[in-house]
This record gives sequence, C-alpha cells and structure tokens, in this order.
Amino acid sequence: MNQHYERLQTYLDKRAALLSAMTLMEWDNETLAPVKAAEKTARCMGILTEGLYHSIVNAEAIGLIHQLQEEEDLTEIQKAVVRTLAKELEKLEKISPKDERAYSELVSRSQMVWQKAKVEDDYDTFAPYLEQVVDMTRKRNACCRKEGQRLYDVSLYEYEEGFGIQELDVFFAELKKTIVPLLKRIQESGVQPNTDFVYRTYEVEKQKQFNLWLAEYLGFDLEKGVIGESEHPFTTNLHNEDVRITTHYDPNNLLSAIFSTIHETGHALYEMHIPDEMTLTPVGSGASCGMHESQSRMMENMIARSRAFWEPIFGKLKECFPDQLEDVDLDQFVRAINRVQADLIRTESDELTYCLHIMVRYEAEKKLLEESVPVSELPSLWNSLYQEYLGVVPECNRDGVMQDVHWAGGMFGYFPSYALGNAFAAQLYHKMAQELDIPQLLRDGQISGISDWLAEHVHCYGATKTAGEILQLATGESFNPQYYTRYLTEKYTRLYRLEEK
Amino acid sequence: MNQHYERLQTYLDKRAALLSAMTLMEWDNETLAPVKAAEKTARCMGILTEGLYHSIVNAEAIGLIHQLQEEEDLTEIQKAVVRTLAKELEKLEKISPKDERAYSELVSRSQMVWQKAKVEDDYDTFAPYLEQVVDMTRKRNACCRKEGQRLYDVSLYEYEEGFGIQELDVFFAELKKTIVPLLKRIQESGVQPNTDFVYRTYEVEKQKQFNLWLAEYLGFDLEKGVIGESEHPFTTNLHNEDVRITTHYDPNNLLSAIFSTIHETGHALYEMHIPDEMTLTPVGSGASCGMHESQSRMMENMIARSRAFWEPIFGKLKECFPDQLEDVDLDQFVRAINRVQADLIRTESDELTYCLHIMVRYEAEKKLLEESVPVSELPSLWNSLYQEYLGVVPECNRDGVMQDVHWAGGMFGYFPSYALGNAFAAQLYHKMAQELDIPQLLRDGQISGISDWLAEHVHCYGATKTAGEILQLATGESFNPQYYTRYLTEKYTRLYRLEEK
Repeated sequence: MNQHYERLQTYLDKRAALLSAMTLMEWDNETLAPVKAAEKTARCMGILTEGLYHSIVNAEAIGLIHQLQEEEDLTEIQKAVVRTLAKELEKLEKISPKDERAYSELVSRSQMVWQKAKVEDDYDTFAPYLEQVVDMTRKRNACCRKEGQRLYDVSLYEYEEGFGIQELDVFFAELKKTIVPLLKRIQESGVQPNTDFVYRTYEVEKQKQFNLWLAEYLGFDLEKGVIGESEHPFTTNLHNEDVRITTHYDPNNLLSAIFSTIHETGHALYEMHIPDEMTLTPVGSGASCGMHESQSRMMENMIARSRAFWEPIFGKLKECFPDQLEDVDLDQFVRAINRVQADLIRTESDELTYCLHIMVRYEAEKKLLEESVPVSELPSLWNSLYQEYLGVVPECNRDGVMQDVHWAGGMFGYFPSYALGNAFAAQLYHKMAQELDIPQLLRDGQISGISDWLAEHVHCYGATKTAGEILQLATGESFNPQYYTRYLTEKYTRLYRLEEK
Repeated sequence: MNQHYERLQTYLDKRAALLSAMTLMEWDNETLAPVKAAEKTARCMGILTEGLYHSIVNAEAIGLIHQLQEEEDLTEIQKAVVRTLAKELEKLEKISPKDERAYSELVSRSQMVWQKAKVEDDYDTFAPYLEQVVDMTRKRNACCRKEGQRLYDVSLYEYEEGFGIQELDVFFAELKKTIVPLLKRIQESGVQPNTDFVYRTYEVEKQKQFNLWLAEYLGFDLEKGVIGESEHPFTTNLHNEDVRITTHYDPNNLLSAIFSTIHETGHALYEMHIPDEMTLTPVGSGASCGMHESQSRMMENMIARSRAFWEPIFGKLKECFPDQLEDVDLDQFVRAINRVQADLIRTESDELTYCLHIMVRYEAEKKLLEESVPVSELPSLWNSLYQEYLGVVPECNRDGVMQDVHWAGGMFGYFPSYALGNAFAAQLYHKMAQELDIPQLLRDGQISGISDWLAEHVHCYGATKTAGEILQLATGESFNPQYYTRYLTEKYTRLYRLEEK
C-alpha cells in the first residue's frame, strides 16, 4: 500500500470511530436518552466534535492529504477519499477556528430562538437572529467561493456538487412551467378522492407490527439495522451493518407512519448496500443529499404509491385493521394515497406539490443571499410565492416562513437537494423501467429485484462519485429534469382523469 | 484555578467524553444493536480505547499529573482526581504497551474459548488458555507490585484498595466460622418454604409494568435514566443524569426480574447521586466495586427481602397477577423470597449462601496466583470446596469451575469485592438503623428516607475516598465483618426458627 496513505489511515480510523460514536449519541438522544441527560451529553458531544475536527486538521494529516493528491498509486476508493478530505480541508482552511466557533454558537442560539418564536408565532423576535445568520453566511461564502461561483452557489455546493444557481434556475423553471399549471388543472377539476378512512383510530401496537413487517418486506435487514421511534422520523448509520431508522406513530392517521417507514427504508437500503471497502471511510455513505433523497422518495412515491405495490399486500393491511378498512377497496386506497392537496406545510405535502414548496424556498433563499432582500421582507415574499405556486397563503408565520428549522440553522442550500432528489429518482426510475418489469416485480412481491438494481447502479459507488456522475453512469445521460415533470404529468393526469375533461 | 490543573482539564474533558461515548456503545451493544454490527463497532471501540489511553498517557498530561501531585492549591476533588490519575499512570508505566496489547488479546481470545468450552462442558480445551492468563497475570503483578504486596494482592488492589490477602483472610475466616455452620443447621432443620408459586406463568408485559413502577418506587428517576432489557442485567452510566439499568424477563419466574431490577436500581441510585462537580471526572463514579455492590445488595436483600418493604406494595403485585398469586399471602411471599437453598450457581444463589460461593472463588484464585496450583487441578479443588462449604458438588465443570467469565477475562481479585459489598452493606445498614426507623419508613413507602441517608453518607463522596474511608466516615469505625455475620445469623435463625429446635 502507498506509504503515505498508510500513515493517513490512522487519522481516518480515528475519524471513523469518532463519527460512529457521535452518530450513536445523536440517535440515542432522539430515541431513548432521558430528558435531563441532554445538557451534559451535549458537552461531551462538543468535545468529541473538536476531536473529530483535529483528526484531519492537524499538521501531519494535512501534509499527507496534500501530498497524496499528487500521487498515482492509489486505488479508486483511496483517490476518492483523498479528494473528499481535500475538499473538506479547503473549506476549513479558509475559515478561522475562531470564526467557525462564532458561527456555530450563532446558529445554535438562533435555532433555540426559532423554536420558541415558532411556538409563539413571533417572527419579530426571530428576525434579528436570522439576519445575523444570513450576514455571516454571506461573509463565509465570500471567503470560500471559487472562481465563477456566486455567493449562493457556495451554499448549494455544500449539499449538491454540480448543482449551482445556473442548473437550478433551469430545473425550477421547468417545474414552474409544468407543475404549477398541472396543479391548477387538478384543483379546477373538482375531483378529490375520499380519504376519511385515513383518520380513523389505528392502534399503535398494530401499526408497529405492520410497519415492522413492511420494512422487512422492502428489504430492511433487522440483523443489520434497528427500527426505533422519534418525534421526527430519520435515518442514520454507524456503518453498513448498523443502519437505523425511526418512525413516529399517530393513532389517528394510518398513512403517516407507513409512508415514513417506507421513506426511511429507502434511505436505509442505500446505507446497507455501501460496500465493505468503503464503509467507515470518508466516502462510506450516500453520494449526496439529493442522491440520498432520490432513494427514499423513489421508494415512498414511485414504488409505494403505485397500485402494483399494494396489490399483494393490501390484504395484509386490511387483516391488521379489519374494522377500520372494511369499506375500503384497493382502488379507493390507491386514490387516497395519491391525493393532491395544495397546503401550507412542506413535511405534510403530497408527491405533486412537494417540489412547489421547495421552489418557494429556493427563490426565497436565493433572494436573501444574492439580492440582499432584507429579512423583514421575507414573510411577505414567502406568502406571495405560496399564493403564486400553490394558491394558498398562511395565516401566520408559524405555518409560513418559520415552519422549517433549516434557515435558523444556517442550512441555506439544503432545500433544493430535496427537489433534486425527486428528479434524480424519476430519471433513475425511467432507466430501471427499461430494464425491469417493475409493476410485475411489485405484483410478485419481488422488491429485491428493484433494490438489487439500485444497489448495482447507485448504492455501490458510495460517495466516490458525485450525484451527477452516478446519474450519467446509471442512465447513460446527464441530469434531465424532464423525466420528473413527465412522470408527474403522466401520473396525475391519469389519476385525476384530466384528459377526459 | 491552578494553572496546571487548568491545562490538565483539556485532557480530562477528552477522557470523560470518550468514556461516555464508549459507555453508550457498550450499552447499545447489549440492548439494541443489530447482531451483525458487532464486528465493525468493536473495531471502532478499539480505536476509541486507544484514544482514551492517550488522553492521559501523553507527555504533557503525564508531566502535569506528576507536577500536580506536589501542589497544594487544589480543591479536595481536584486532589482526588490527581491521585486517581497518578494511580492509573503508575500501573500503565510499569507495563509496556506491547505487553498490554498481548494481554488484552489473550484475554479476549480466552473468553471466546471459554464461551464455547462452557457450552460443550469441555474444560480441557479451556485449560491451556486459563493457564496462560494465570501466567501472564502473575508476571504483570510481579511488575506492578509495591513493597509488601504479594502477587494476589496486586489483583485485589485493582478492585478494592485496602483489602488485600491479610484483610480478606480475616474476613473469610469469620464467614467460614459462622455461615458454614449456620447453613448446616438450616439444612438439617428440614424447614423449607413453599416456592411453587414463583414458577407459574407471569406475562412479560405485566412484569414490565410492575418492574417499571417498582424502580420508580425505589427512587429511579426516569428523567435521568433508562430501563432496558438485556441477557444479563447490568447498570451503566454516561454521567449522573444518564444512568441506565437493564432487566431480563423470565415468563416462568416471578422473582428473577423483580430482584434484578431492585439490585440494579441500588447501583443506579448511587450513580444518580454523584455530585455535579464530580460527574464526568475520574472520581465521578462509585468508590469501588465493593462499595457499589453494597448499595445494590443492601437494596436487594436487607431492604427488599424484608416484610416491612412488601407490606405496602404486595397488594400491588397481587393486582398485577391476581390468578397466579390468589393463594399466596404476604407471609408466604416473604418466606419464599428468603428461601435458603445451597446450590451450584452463584448468580442464582440466595442471600445466605452467596458469600460461600465467593469464598470458594477466593480460595481457589489465591491458590492459583500464590501457590502455583496448576490449572489442571482447579476442578477438583473447586468441587471439594463446594462440598465443604455448601455441601453440594457439580456434576460437570459447566456448572462448576467454568460457570463464570471472570477468570477467562483475567479478572482475578474481582470476586472478593462481591462478598465485601455485602459486608459493607451490613455495616452501613446497622448504622443507618440507629438513626432511622427503617421498618417504619418501608411500611410508609418512604424509600427516599433511606436513599437520602445513603446519598448523604456514601454517594456524595463519589470516588474521592476509598471504601474503607467512606465506611469510617459513615459509621465511625473501620471495616468490621461481624455486622454482616450477625445480621445473617439473626435473620436466618429467626426465619428458619432455629432457636425453637
């Protein structure tokens, strides 16, 4: 093995071990830890975070990483590891530890203020903090930007390399052109499926049983994973043989836990399929936020909202809840799980309108970072964008501009990756459908046919490639958002029988 | 603050954070982690263990610790921290990292061999490993021993400072003189309570509800702790506001989970009562193995096997299991939970015979380390000691010399601390009974009266003092094993009505 890489390995090992430990602490904190533990455990986490920083940011490791960028006798994975670390260092070297600390204190305070302000619907208290976060983000981005990058591009690069303002403007223009009018047609059609049965009472114990069965049906391996509960569902992993998802059970909503279990299982399969030689390295996880989201959203929407998916298992669901679902047949169920309803809250939105919620955020954060639109004008901007794209306006900022934590936490540039994920999913799905008879696999309960394809064409790369490179390799072409808009148009035209009108 | 201590603080923080993370990983491993996670997570743990070692064993920290041993302007807690670290260093400096690694590899392999050999009742396969462990322990102890210490003393010192061969010989002689004949009288009395009801079927869900309620009744604060399940019950803690216990439920044994919950809650209260200024420092835990065991055994035996304890809550237990306990009254229940039954397995033994199981191990390990008795003779030695003290002889080594993991893991010197714990408990209990009306507190359900006393006289010191010093402070006298033998003699004479015969 390359001598320099061998020496770097010690630092990589330390980094991986600390990351696993911290991942577990975060998981535990969300699922199990006693309430009063938070403060002291956070102190420990802070110390470990510092250790994690120094595992790579130290004279020897930095020297080795720079040295290794010049060397040829590395495996492809090793090259990707060096590239990833060099990218991390590049950013870290441009921001002083002092500024980094000030920033992380600010966003931590800002999130606390946001939490309280949201409950009290008090935007004025939150605004000065958000203003500081925007200011500091602009300054940080100015320090870090590379040639040709605009300020907002620097934030976007954090979450999705290769998808800057230029690419996203094209992407969202395409959505605006097709989905906004499509939604209007649906709204005007007057067609709405009956979803009353969704809100009947569903015992949590039985929901748990069904969700556990469902996760395994989708391929979640309980010998390599854990299913827990938390307020907000999420996926995390220590490595490829310890992948954890959570669900949240609502006794008055049948679909909430089911679709979040499916969504998180999509994420989990990605992590379970990371090759052994990549796990516990800096490239041992999904390629990007968007690519990860493509896996969860494909599972949740394209696969699990299809009729074929439910054909073999709807009976199982009815068996669990015979009284509640007595008067519901498969067709009614499939219409209900695909109901389109323009509404205010992103996390509760349906497949079609989801990307419009993201589009509002994209335009708003672009204006904040690029056009210096003042934070005081954000609520009215938000409301007018909701009116324009979704036809609804929040009555209070709690249900509007303050609904998500991202901006309070300085995570500008994150939202667009959610929408990109859906579009990646559509492009991958289109290709997969040329090679596999997906509906038939679903009717036969052969989910593994699908997840094997994803493992082979997406998961196997870990983070050794960018999302764009994976798309190219898997589908033979570069990113093309039209697969997504066409998929949505075709599906919802059919479901809402828009042609017949 | 002392400048040198302030500099040491960085290393202490790192040590504390790593320990908390590793504690959580161990807890998770026993309670929740998926089976296939073990190997990779163990690799991470190994790397963190090395980090933990270097958090103190590095040039600057070592220099600071030695320097601080000479300095006066430290708080009592800081002095205790320096003392504790100096003691750790003293040992680490005497054994080379290479020898340490060889030892830890040996005991890890030896435990794996033991596990398989135990299942197969194959002592001959295990013996060569045990022999190596004994050899290496003798060599390590020879390196580490201080003036006046015998080889076995070095092992004993690891678990209970101040209780070497000399003190333990006196202690066990006292036990031998009183408990062995007391057991014989009980066995000859022919009196045996009926315990059939214990082995009826008790639904695990209901057991869980009762045990949760019971832990809280004893003072376990669910805002500062978690109750989980594992194969073997244990207590662990990240810090004083995150203390975790486990229980194991047997659907065909009412008492197994109940008394292990009580035992572990005794440990947990100790850790929950560690003062804030000590937690997350090297003195932020119980004083010693023996002192910890005194808290769990006092709760389990002296308190929770008394009639007064069950008077207010036996009704609650009957409510949970009305059918199973229909024909059982309080007196019968109390006799059953105090049944004496000389048997082969330490972990299943009753309050009276427990210390005899330990006595066998003490004598055996003393002979291994001090008298070079060959490992091949261990089974016959074991069997003859069981015959002598308990009047029973195992039919196979699985139920005899191979039943515990300790020796396979090199933990010589650990067993005696279990017996000492019981004796510490009796001495503390005797003092407490002079100051509190314990039966009345129990009848009133005022467990906090007892745990407050323990917090004030034992828990508050953390590990700033040795067990011997705490006993002296709490009871006004040095360790006196007669409180323990008198307590057992008085209690079991009464329960088995031996005077009347």
